[in-house]
Order: sequence, then structure tokens, then C-alpha cells
Amino acid sequence: MDAHLIDSEIFGHQWSTPESHAIFAEPSRVRRWLEVVIALAEAQAEVGVIPAGSAVAIAGLRDRELDVVAIGESTRATSHSTLGMIQVLRTLLPADAAEHVYYGTTVQDISDTAQVLEIGAVADLLWRDLWAIEAELLALASTHRETAMVGRTHGQPGAPITFGFKAATWADETGRNLERLRSGRDRWLVGQLGGAVGVLGFFGSRAMPLRTAYCRRLGLAEPAISWLTTRDRPAEFAQVVASLTTSAARIANEVYVLARAELGELREPTSAATVGSISMPHKRNPEVSEQVVTLARLVRSLSGVLSDTMVGEHERDGRSWKTEWVVLPELCHYALAATGMTRSLISSLEVDPTRMRANLESTGSATSERLLSAMSERLGKHHAQATLHQAYREASESGRTLKAVLEGRVEAGELAELDRVHTGAAAAMADEVVARARRRREKESTSWR
Amino acid sequence: MDAHLIDSEIFGHQWSTPESHAIFAEPSRVRRWLEVVIALAEAQAEVGVIPAGSAVAIAGLRDRELDVVAIGESTRATSHSTLGMIQVLRTLLPADAAEHVYYGTTVQDISDTAQVLEIGAVADLLWRDLWAIEAELLALASTHRETAMVGRTHGQPGAPITFGFKAATWADETGRNLERLRSGRDRWLVGQLGGAVGVLGFFGSRAMPLRTAYCRRLGLAEPAISWLTTRDRPAEFAQVVASLTTSAARIANEVYVLARAELGELREPTSAATVGSISMPHKRNPEVSEQVVTLARLVRSLSGVLSDTMVGEHERDGRSWKTEWVVLPELCHYALAATGMTRSLISSLEVDPTRMRANLESTGSATSERLLSAMSERLGKHHAQATLHQAYREASESGRTLKAVLEGRVEAGELAELDRVHTGAAAAMADEVVARARRRREKESTSWR
Amino acid sequence: MDAHLIDSEIFGHQWSTPESHAIFAEPSRVRRWLEVVIALAEAQAEVGVIPAGSAVAIAGLRDRELDVVAIGESTRATSHSTLGMIQVLRTLLPADAAEHVYYGTTVQDISDTAQVLEIGAVADLLWRDLWAIEAELLALASTHRETAMVGRTHGQPGAPITFGFKAATWADETGRNLERLRSGRDRWLVGQLGGAVGVLGFFGSRAMPLRTAYCRRLGLAEPAISWLTTRDRPAEFAQVVASLTTSAARIANEVYVLARAELGELREPTSAATVGSISMPHKRNPEVSEQVVTLARLVRSLSGVLSDTMVGEHERDGRSWKTEWVVLPELCHYALAATGMTRSLISSLEVDPTRMRANLESTGSATSERLLSAMSERLGKHHAQATLHQAYREASESGRTLKAVLEGRVEAGELAELDRVHTGAAAAMADEVVARARRRREKESTSWR
Amino acid sequence: MDAHLIDSEIFGHQWSTPESHAIFAEPSRVRRWLEVVIALAEAQAEVGVIPAGSAVAIAGLRDRELDVVAIGESTRATSHSTLGMIQVLRTLLPADAAEHVYYGTTVQDISDTAQVLEIGAVADLLWRDLWAIEAELLALASTHRETAMVGRTHGQPGAPITFGFKAATWADETGRNLERLRSGRDRWLVGQLGGAVGVLGFFGSRAMPLRTAYCRRLGLAEPAISWLTTRDRPAEFAQVVASLTTSAARIANEVYVLARAELGELREPTSAATVGSISMPHKRNPEVSEQVVTLARLVRSLSGVLSDTMVGEHERDGRSWKTEWVVLPELCHYALAATGMTRSLISSLEVDPTRMRANLESTGSATSERLLSAMSERLGKHHAQATLHQAYREASESGRTLKAVLEGRVEAGELAELDRVHTGAAAAMADEVVARARRRREKESTSWR
Repeated sequence: MDAHLIDSEIFGHQWSTPESHAIFAEPSRVRRWLEVVIALAEAQAEVGVIPAGSAVAIAGLRDRELDVVAIGESTRATSHSTLGMIQVLRTLLPADAAEHVYYGTTVQDISDTAQVLEIGAVADLLWRDLWAIEAELLALASTHRETAMVGRTHGQPGAPITFGFKAATWADETGRNLERLRSGRDRWLVGQLGGAVGVLGFFGSRAMPLRTAYCRRLGLAEPAISWLTTRDRPAEFAQVVASLTTSAARIANEVYVLARAELGELREPTSAATVGSISMPHKRNPEVSEQVVTLARLVRSLSGVLSDTMVGEHERDGRSWKTEWVVLPELCHYALAATGMTRSLISSLEVDPTRMRANLESTGSATSERLLSAMSERLGKHHAQATLHQAYREASESGRTLKAVLEGRVEAGELAELDRVHTGAAAAMADEVVARARRRREKESTSWR
Repeated sequence: MDAHLIDSEIFGHQWSTPESHAIFAEPSRVRRWLEVVIALAEAQAEVGVIPAGSAVAIAGLRDRELDVVAIGESTRATSHSTLGMIQVLRTLLPADAAEHVYYGTTVQDISDTAQVLEIGAVADLLWRDLWAIEAELLALASTHRETAMVGRTHGQPGAPITFGFKAATWADETGRNLERLRSGRDRWLVGQLGGAVGVLGFFGSRAMPLRTAYCRRLGLAEPAISWLTTRDRPAEFAQVVASLTTSAARIANEVYVLARAELGELREPTSAATVGSISMPHKRNPEVSEQVVTLARLVRSLSGVLSDTMVGEHERDGRSWKTEWVVLPELCHYALAATGMTRSLISSLEVDPTRMRANLESTGSATSERLLSAMSERLGKHHAQATLHQAYREASESGRTLKAVLEGRVEAGELAELDRVHTGAAAAMADEVVARARRRREKESTSWR
Repeated sequence: MDAHLIDSEIFGHQWSTPESHAIFAEPSRVRRWLEVVIALAEAQAEVGVIPAGSAVAIAGLRDRELDVVAIGESTRATSHSTLGMIQVLRTLLPADAAEHVYYGTTVQDISDTAQVLEIGAVADLLWRDLWAIEAELLALASTHRETAMVGRTHGQPGAPITFGFKAATWADETGRNLERLRSGRDRWLVGQLGGAVGVLGFFGSRAMPLRTAYCRRLGLAEPAISWLTTRDRPAEFAQVVASLTTSAARIANEVYVLARAELGELREPTSAATVGSISMPHKRNPEVSEQVVTLARLVRSLSGVLSDTMVGEHERDGRSWKTEWVVLPELCHYALAATGMTRSLISSLEVDPTRMRANLESTGSATSERLLSAMSERLGKHHAQATLHQAYREASESGRTLKAVLEGRVEAGELAELDRVHTGAAAAMADEVVARARRRREKESTSWR
Repeated sequence: MDAHLIDSEIFGHQWSTPESHAIFAEPSRVRRWLEVVIALAEAQAEVGVIPAGSAVAIAGLRDRELDVVAIGESTRATSHSTLGMIQVLRTLLPADAAEHVYYGTTVQDISDTAQVLEIGAVADLLWRDLWAIEAELLALASTHRETAMVGRTHGQPGAPITFGFKAATWADETGRNLERLRSGRDRWLVGQLGGAVGVLGFFGSRAMPLRTAYCRRLGLAEPAISWLTTRDRPAEFAQVVASLTTSAARIANEVYVLARAELGELREPTSAATVGSISMPHKRNPEVSEQVVTLARLVRSLSGVLSDTMVGEHERDGRSWKTEWVVLPELCHYALAATGMTRSLISSLEVDPTRMRANLESTGSATSERLLSAMSERLGKHHAQATLHQAYREASESGRTLKAVLEGRVEAGELAELDRVHTGAAAAMADEVVARARRRREKESTSWR
């Protein structure tokens, strides 16, 4: 079916990626559930809960493509979330083993654990993308450490900065997102095995050894306690994803604005095949930047829903985990699309230093802070400020240049500042970001695991 | 593709309905766009923008199943939202007509107009469901106008009400949601034709007549002005949908709580095939109620995103309309699932008056308000309140009955109130809701159009 | 106390208005509760629930300034929301009347009804502001119906529009917000009187006449049924306020962007006393626009919270109505600040037609759509589009003008389009907005009541 | 002023605490800004930017109570966020020093740094409360490791757990929130000094040494680069606060539900002075639990707003930092109120093991999972499940006991399970939580710094 835009043949690529589809397509999800069911059976055989032969038979289904339509029918008939799949599995098993599949467990044992595997798979990709994005940003920060451009505040031209400084603030933020992804890993990659109400009552004295074996077989850490309604983990994952997607959106939004024709300092790469507008043939639209901003807004909203559902009731609460079922994959699709787009956006970003310099000159913002600084030493800061403020108003109202207005009012050495561009500690700060990041990256792994 | 739960063969039925799929499946959406493209061509022929023959040729594609894969490929190649479809259409048309398809318009002319048609289709179904839900609720209000039960505040038993009173508050709220759906119709069912920047510059003096003809052919009202970045309409629709879904969630949540085994006053219908829990065979879960609450939360969140995107920039802003592309259908799937479930929940709701009466007696809440009232006439309200408050504490701490504690402290006639259940104006208010609703329904149409 | 920015002596004016403080300052809110308590007593005397003398005594407190500190102490001691106030009232009353104050009612009877009065007071002001804003916008739409400027899509220059067209889209949206405010009035201005659980059990057969008298005295409509946990009304009010504030934010955001020095088409008014930046004396910041955008985001978020709390449980749910207590006033402060600022922003907005025209010429966007139209008649739309698309790329890559590139490739008459500015149906659509609005305003009242 | 509920004399205590007022009251905030201004002056003297005498004079204002009304007037007159305060400071300084106050910096240097100090002050209190809450929860987990009670799923009674198990899931979650608070500290406690656009252009070569001295004097880490529009830090703080507040809400919500009279397993502590309901004297309301749930919802919503504002533009963006000005303190008020209430709620929570046991017996949930387990060994899981499922339906429909229905169908030894309560690994998991937490707490500090 294809009634969500993520699944659209025509538009799906804007909201998801081939990798996100590989993770969350229905056959993948069924296979992942089956993987967990098999690990469970093997662990149960290991600790003596079911016969070894049953585990072998169940494990034999590993690469079996299950009949999704049949699962669906049975799911609707029973109104039970896993029974559909179990009934199909049972038809594929000998009678004995059929009694031992999904033995003594509950929906969430399977679905939460599978979700953790999905979180891991997504986090791997996010880490890879962020790692690459940070590298590109650090390169931009170094390359353009001295590339002067207008700094803007409240949307208006202010004193000069460098483009490397700007890129370094992006790298700085990206670095912290990497830290956050790293910091959450051990909290997130944790198995779930609790049975009906979390205490594994079905298994008597074999409960705890069973859980240990099960988590080990899946390569997951063992929790201190079942977390069936303790949902801070997926909520935190979503928050970190929202944070990193939103940081990407800050970059994309900046590209969007600086690519305005009237500013023209940055441009998205484009190809000859791209059609900006049919009815306005001259258009060149920042489609990617726009889409990253859009995706990040959706990710934040979905993350907020997962925070809400942390308030689950009692030992299991379908209002929480079913929300996760629908929200987490959607959030991951969008986030992977956003980081993928951001990566490609940054790696081929067109930077126009000539236009940056021209804007600096035409907006007259190049010098205001240094001129004030020079005058302040003589007049005091506040008097200098008042003098300049007045001069700017006069210039603006009379149409004369600031220099003309100031002539005779300030000293010649001060006035000379109007012809210089100072970018202050821009390069030094960019360098500091690069240096710190390099030290961190040397100690870090290129993969999330 | 099936990487969103809405499109899942196994779980899709919990998040969407066959009707919502019929509206939003990709082939339907392509067909709807085609329908708009045809109306455009016919209107253009009508006012002399394109030759009549071209319009006839284009209209000839009406029932043609378009190649969605080819559209997708071309969309990705051009990075343009409609060009993929247009290129496929052109291959199906004679050379002349091929130049006249999608003539002088922009993406949003097609997509906004199609979206309005979708809003209409969804609103029709929502109206039908709400109309039926209101009828069921009014019947419950009448049937149970005197069925006494515990009223609860802060989650604790309070004075008595009737179940009809409770159902009447649901009906009352549902009635206002019908009003809201009705009130928005003329604001929502409005066509879009603006061209590249909204002013229809391509068409010279034929612009306004063209727009009139186009809207008329589609059965839509004509806007005063293009609304390409004026998105209060879809945002308002989403808010009304969020309101009505959330009202449904209030009902569902109440069923969920009153169906708790310890309360047992209401129950979801269930069938023999339903399996509440595999590992706890005695379970009977309020799955539908739970799901309606879950769906409504998602709808509210999505509605919030659409309010955010009302702040669009300039003449067209992809961040706004692309957000609508993904959010509006998703919201409609969820809302239709929620109202459909609510309708079936209410129409076969199991009400247990015996248990209601038993709870009234066992929680001792039946009489507190009337006893207080009786005592107040003699002692004054605040003295009576203090006396009773003290007596309740004593009873609670000593384990004696309230009656035993009060004996001798209050007059016998007052004490007799402890054996009576007064439900105040519960029935009168329920009746008033029914009467007002009947008057409204007599004047209203059963269909939204 | 002053620990919220709304109450800050220094910054409060950015987040609230003198009028919003007049409505929501603690003494006002206490006075409003007292007003409801008095109406209740008078209604109770009218239907014979309490002696006339008590009602007279209670009404005698009407202009009494209550001791807020004492109310606070008693509130904290009893952990009860109204008891603090009642205890203070009782000390001011003769013994008899003291027993008859707040007789047989519950917190929400007072607080919900007072909240309705507040909603009314706020809606009056919002209507006044919106009414004035619409008038200003209609004037802008008329004045600038032919003032050509760049239309922009995806943040990039597109075909020409007029500023009057843009202002008309704002007026169009504002008009619908007026409709929404109007449409909600009869749903919102409704009294609340339900007693402990909504059925007025305390009052026996006098319940319904009492409610009628109470609502009449307060100038409010009578509900069909108590709405103690039926909170669609305040939620809807909040949604409408969010809608109108967000529409204001769309205007403000447009001013913010078009006031960028590099665009310079609009400017916020400023005064000589305003200091844009201390360290950058030339700065002139769009502070008001920025703040309106900020306020609207907060209003939307608060409105979302009120939608969530529509899912209240049972007969009264403190989680819902206490949320309203804190959220609704905050939302109203922000909304009144936003509409007040928007009104002043629009009424003295600086429009720069010269700069608009200059941008039109320098971005080369003036003609693309009309040129395409002219060429399409000869070549067919899609061939014309391909030709132009190619020419733009060549011009962009070679640094030649589009005219130079096109010379010889297109006909002279077509090429002449490059020297003309067509604004299509911009003026006609602006006129249509003005005409429809005038008709509506003639039939409407200038006040909300 | 007192127009926000946080500042209400009557209701402020429900939305804030004396400590939160001490941090965020206007005089405190002015004093904190002054503290930063002084540190700046001292650092500037240290690196030779201003004369030592000026720094001494400015530092002399340290304990001076500033005229907040005068600051407010000047702020409104200049429309500048810090100029009001600076003008008042200048009137208190000798002429020389007056020129050197707030020298070469921008609003956010002061306000962001002060905000970091506020975040630190709040985090200290949150850590203290969480640390104490975790201790109480661990004690509950140990004390009640074997206290059997009904486990519930989907709101319905399921298999048995212990109350210690439940409390341990709370402790487990609280422990992770402590980790998150700890993990963020070094990212959050970072000074801000960037000047107009972040590059400290005013200070020439003294820029970097100045920043070092400034941060050192304030006890804050030095950032790699200015973070004027890089707002992931405050957003992350807000997310962690939302997480811990929401975890508290999960506890509070559970108390709220289990305190329902029909369940009666937990109760909020109450005092004789508390008045549950005036008109229903027997009421005992879970007011604190209710309020914690309410506060957490607000905190999440505010946290969402701060995530949105991470998408700031250019070098400084008032839409982001002004949002923080209003949102962060509000969020902290609510969070401190919530954690304070939760601490007191848990420390005197009334647990009723007798009622827990009674509910276990009356809902018949004690044994279903173990009986199924016993039968599964003989019949296979799915046959056993089908048998039991059928028996439950028969029992439910016939009114007979499950035992009576099963007699003869299952073996006697299996049937005997119906008289035993097994709580599985509940105690073992609770122990594991306690053991892990003890190890962590031994290595941790009781204070956040």
C-alpha cells in the first residue's frame, strides 16, 4: 500500500531514503521480529525452558519469507498484535516446535527488542552521516577562516565575520550532537524480556538466566529491570535525533537565506536536469535546504509525541508503545532523509567570496564596530556610540555617505577605519573549534558501535 | 512500498480505514491531480486560452491509469513536483495537446485544488460518522437519563450522576463539532488558481474568467485572491479535525477507565475470536478505546504542525505546502480511523447499570451532597460542611460507618438522606441536550455538502 | 511578585499590554470571582435558595478590595482553590450571610464562569484590533494595487506582483479570522453552574431555575448541560486566537524579511530614541516584527496544550482546568501584545516603491512569465520553457544578459516583453478582496458583542 | 505585577517554589546581570582593555539595589534590552567608569551568561531533589520487594507483580535522569562573550584573553566559539528537564490511578487541615499527583518551543533568545515545583499492602500466568492458552468460578496453582535496580557541581 507519502513512488524520496526503507519496510520488520523470536527460542533451549529440537526448528525459519497477507488477516481476526505472525509461524513448524514458539512472552518482548535493533541500525547511519558532515564543516571552517562576509543580527547587516566562523559554529553544534548520540548508546541498546507484566512470571527460577542468554544472543545489554512502561529510552533517542536534525535545519535555513538572489553568498549545487520552475524559467530554488527545514520540523513534532507517551500507566500501556510503533519509524525516515540531504548539501555547497565581499561593502557594515572601538578609546564608549548613532541617522536621511558626515567630527585615524575590514577573533575561534574537534575525533571511532 | 504503519498489511487497519486508503492511495491521488489538470484544460478552452481540441484530448485521459513508476523516475530526475506527471501525460497526447497540458500554471494550482477535493471527501465521511455518533449518544442520553452512577472528580467518587447525563455531555460536545465542520465548509471548499506567484500573469486579460470557469467546473467556490501562502484554511480544517477526534478520545478514555475491572461500569464489545492476552488468558482489553486515545494525540500533534506552517513567506513557500502534503493525509487517515472506531465503540457499548449502582453504594458517595444540603438548611453551609468533613475523617479512621458516626449528631430526617440517591438535575440536563440537538438535526442535512 | 517575564517591570511590555494586565492582574481576577459569587447569591435569593438579606449583604461586598495575602495563606492551608477567598469573605459578612456565600457550588462554577468573562473581555479587544488591522490592510491593498514588486517563491525572485496584492492576501486572511471570532461567540459566552459533579444535586427542584437566573444576571447564555470536563469551548477559543496571532506573524515575518537591508522594500517605523545596537550604531532592527513572530509561536504552543487537556476524565478533572488557569491568561497576554504590535506596525509601515521597482529590475524576474507566455503561443509551452530554461543557464554561466542570449532565437515582439512589467491580475484580485471585505464590514458590527 | 499565575499571591505556590522565585524574581535577575557586567569589567581591566580604576568602581556596585522602575522606563524609551540598565548604572558611576561599563559587548553576552548561571542554579536544585527522590524510591523498592499486588496492562488486571518492582522501575528511570543531568553539565556551564556578531571585533588582539579571563571569573568553562545562535545547549537542558519532570509525572499519575477509591492501593498523604471538597465532604483528592502531571505537560510543551528556536538565523536572532528569556524561567518554575512536590509525595506515600492483596484476589489475576505455564508443559503453550481462554469465557458467562469450570479438565497439580501467588522475578529485578543504583551513587557526588 502507498497511502502515506513516505511510501509514494513519486515523492517518497523526499521523505525517506533507500536505507530507511530497507530498515522499515514491512518484510524487514517481520524478519526482525522473527530474528528476536528465534533468539528467544535459542535462549530458552539454552536454559532448559524448551527442548533443543524446538529451538533448532524455529531457528530454521530464519530466512523464510513469511506470508504478510496471511499474518494481516489473522491479526485482524484476533485483534492481537503478534498472534497473526505466531499462527503463520506455527503452520511452518512441526507440532512440537509449534508449541514452543513465542513461549511465555508478550508482544513487547518482541516489539521493544526489535525496536532497539532498529534504533541501533538508524543510529549507525546517523552517526556515519554526522561524522561526515562534521568533517565537511571543519574543512569549510578552515578553508574560509579568513573569508570575510557580513555578520547579521535581527536579519540586518552588522559587523563583519568570516564564513569559516559561521561554518565553525555549525561544526561546533554538530560535534555536540555526536557526543549526545554517543552518550545515549549504552542507555538505548538494551533488550526487553518481561513477559506479561514485566516480572517473567511464566519462567519460575529460570527467568533471570533466560533474560541474560536472550540479550547476549542479540548483542544487547541486559536491563536492570523490565522497561515496558518506562519509555525514557526511546523518548531520549527521539530527542537526540530531533536535536541533530534541527541542527541540520539551522544550516539548511542559513543556506536558504544566504542563497536569496539579493544576498547570493551561498548556493545549493544544482544539475542541468533540475527544473526550478516551469512557468519562471530563470528560477533556481533551494529545494534541498527547504526540505531539510521541513523534515526537521516534523521530527521535532514527533519527538514531542514520544515525550508525552512517557507517562504510561501500570505495567504495560498500549497508548504508549503503539504510539512508538507508528512514530519512531516515521521520525527515523525523516531524520535519515534530512541528514542525507544535509550531507550532500554541505559537501557541494557553492560559496561565493566575491559576493560576500561585495555585500560587506555595499551594506556599509564592515566597519561600524571597529570605528566605534577606535572612537571609544578617545571619547568613551557611550559618547562615541551617541556620536555614531547620530551620524548614521544623518547619513541615512540626507543620502550622504557616513564618511562625509563624520569628516571633521572624528579624527582622521579613526575615520580610516571606514576603509578596513576587521573580522576580530573569527579565525581564532574557527581554529579553536577545529582543534577541539580533531582531538575528539582522534579518540573517537568512525562507527557508532 | 509499505514502510509506514499506515501502509502495513498487518497493522494498517489500526491507523487508517479502507475509505482513507481509497482517498489517499497513490493512484487515487494521481487520478485526482489528473482530474484537476483536465478541468484546467477545459476551462482554458472555454475562455480561449487553448484550442478546444487540446482540451478534448486531455479530457480523454480521464480514466487512464498513469504509470506511477515512470512519473516517479521523472520526478526524481527533474527535482520538480509536477513535471514527472506532466511528462508522462505528454507521451499520451498528440503533439498539439501535449503543449497545452498544465498550461501556464504552477504546482500548487493543481496540488492545492486537489487537496481541497480531498478535504471535501474526508469531511463528508467525518460528517457522516459524527452524525451517527451523535445519534447514538443522544439515544444513550435518553435511555440512561435516570441510570444512577457515581460521579467522579479528581479521579475520586463524588456525588451521584446518571449515565445519561454523562452521555449527554458527549453528545453536547459532538454537536458543537458538527457545527464547526459545517461552519468551515464555505471557507475550505475553494479552488486555487494563481500561476507562478499568484497573480496569473501568464494569462493576461483572460486570467479572471479562466479562474471562474476552472472553479465552476470543479464544483468549488472561487477565492477572492490566491491563497498560495495563506494557509489558514487547511490549518483550520486540521484544527476542527483535531477537535472532533479529541472529543472522541474523551469518550474513549472514559470507556477505558470505566471498563477497569475494579470499576466495571462500561465495557467494549468483544467477540469470541478476540484474544486479549496470550499469556494472561483471562484478559479482556479495551483495545479500541486505547487506540482512539492514541490516534487523537497524533492528530493533535499533526494539527499543531499545520498551524506552524501558516507562517509562510512571500508568494509561495515550499516549507508550508510540502508539510501539508505529508501531514494532511496522515492526519485524515488517523482521524477517519478514530471516528470509525468510536462509532462502532458507542453503537455496541456495554453499559452495566447493576455495577454502577453497586459502586454507588460501596463508595459511599451517593449521599454526601444531599445530606450536606439538608444539614445546611439548619446549620448553615459552612458549619454543616465542617461537621460532615470531621465525621468522614472519623469514620475513615475508626472503620465505622458514616451513619454510625453521625447518629445523634444530626437529625433523623437528615440522616435518612444516607439511604437515598439523588441525581439532581442530571435527567433534566440530559433532556435539554437531546431537545436542542433534535431541533438542530431537524434543520440540518445528513450530508455535509 | 515578578518572577515571570509578563510581570517584569523592565520587559513586561514586550509580552503583555496594559489592557491585558488590567484583565488578569490578581486583584482583577479576585474581583471577577467576587462578581460571580455575588451573581450567584442574587440568583439564589431570586429563586428562594437563600434569604434575600444574605444576597444583599453579599452584594454589598462588590467594590470591596479583598486581602489577597490572607486569601493566599488560607488557600495554602486548606489546599482548596476557593476556600481561601470564601474564608476571607465570611469574615466580612454577618453570620447569616456568611453561611450563604458560595452556597452549594464548586470551584469551577466560579472559575469557569469568570474565565468566560475573561474570554469575553479579551475577545472584545482582539476584535477591535483585528477590525482596525483589516481596515489598514484594505487601505494598503487599495493604495498599492498597482505598486509593482518582485514576487518570490522558495525565497527566490519570481514573476512580478504588486504590493497591494500582497497586502490583500493579509487582509483576506484577517477577514476570515474575524469570521472565526464572530462564529465562536455564542459557543463561548456561556455560564457554568453545575455544583460538585455537574448535576446541581444540592439544589433539588430549584436547580434549573437557579441556573437560568444566574446566567441571566451575568449576561451569559445558559448551556444545555454542565461543561465541567467538556473543554472544547476554551480549546476552540485558544485555537482561534492562535490562528489570528499566527496570521499576524505571517505579516510580521514578511516585514522582517522585506526589511532586510539587501531587499529594503519595507521598513518598520522607528523613532530617534530607538537604539538598534550599541556596538553597531548603524543598525536599525525590525524589533516589533521579530517579537510578533515570537509571540505567535508561544500562542500556538499554549493552544496545543489546551487541545490536549480536552481529554478530561469523569465529571471534573483538575489536570484540565488548572492547565487552563495558567495557560489561558498567558496566551491572552501574548496575543494581545501581538495584535497591538501588529496594529501599530501596519499603521505606520514604511513602503518603498522605488526600491521595489529597483529590485524588480535587478533580479531580472520581471518578465520571465510573460515572455514564456508570448513564446508559448508560438512554440508550445514546453518547448518555450525548455528554450528559456537553457537561455537562462547560458546567461548565468557566461555572464551575458538574457536579452543578448535570446537575441535571434526568439522573435522581436517576444523579446520586447523583457522590457515590460506585467503584474497580471494582481490589482483585480486586490480589488476583489477589498470589495468583499467592504460588503462584510457593512453588515458587521465594529464591536464583538 | 502579578498577572501570571506564577506570580499570584494566592496560587503561585502550585506553579513555582520559594527557591524558583529566589532565582527568577526581577531583582535577582538584575543582580545576576550586574554580576556578569562586573566580571566583564574586571576581566577587561585584567587584560588592559579598560583602566583598573573603572573596574573597581563598577565592582563597587555589586550589592547595590538598582532602581527597577527607572530601568524599565529607559528600556521602553530606547527599545533596547540592556540600555535601560546601563543608563541606570552610569548614573551611579563616576564619569570615567561610566564610559567603561558594558564595554564593547552585546546584550547576549550578559543575558546568555546570566542564563547559564540560572541553569546552574536550577540544575543544582533538580539534582538535589532527584537524588533524594531516587533514595526514597530505592527504599520503597527494597521494602516492598515482595509486597504482592496486581500487575495491570491496558488498564486491566493481569498477573501479579510486587510494589517494590513497580517502585524499582521508577528508580531505574530516575537514575537515568540523574545520568542525563550529569552528562549535560559540561556542555551547559559555558560562558558567552562574542560582542556584536560573535567575533569580538571590538577588542582586537585582546579578544581571546579577555574571554578567557571573563569565563574564569564567573566559574564557567570557555566555549570553543560564540554560541549566540547555536542554541542546542539551552534546548538540551530543557529536554533533560522535560524528561525528568515527565518521569516524575509517570510516578504521580500512577499514584493518582492507584489512589482511586475503587483500587485504593496507594494514597497521597493528607493533613487534617486539607479540604478535599466543600460540597462533597468525604472527598480526599490526589491534588499533588494531579498537579505534577499538569506541570510536566507544561514543561514538555515549553521544551518543545525551545527545540523549535534552535533554528536561529545568522549571527544573532532575537526570535530565539527572547523566546528563551520567557520560556526557560517558566519551565524552571514548573519543573522545580514538580520535583519538589514529587519528593514530598514519595517520601510520605501511603502504601496499602492489605488492599493490594485483596485486589489481587478479587480480580482473579493472581494465577493466570503460572497456571498457563504449568499447563503448557503438558499441553504445549498454544493448546493450554486456548483451553484457558475458553474456560475464562465460560466462567465469565456462567458466573461460575474458574476453578469450578476447570475441574476435571486440567490436572490437580495444575489447578493448585490457582491458590498460589507467584511474583516471578519481581524481587530479583528490584534488587538488581537497587544494586546498580548503589554502585552508581557511591561513585557519584550528592551535588551537581
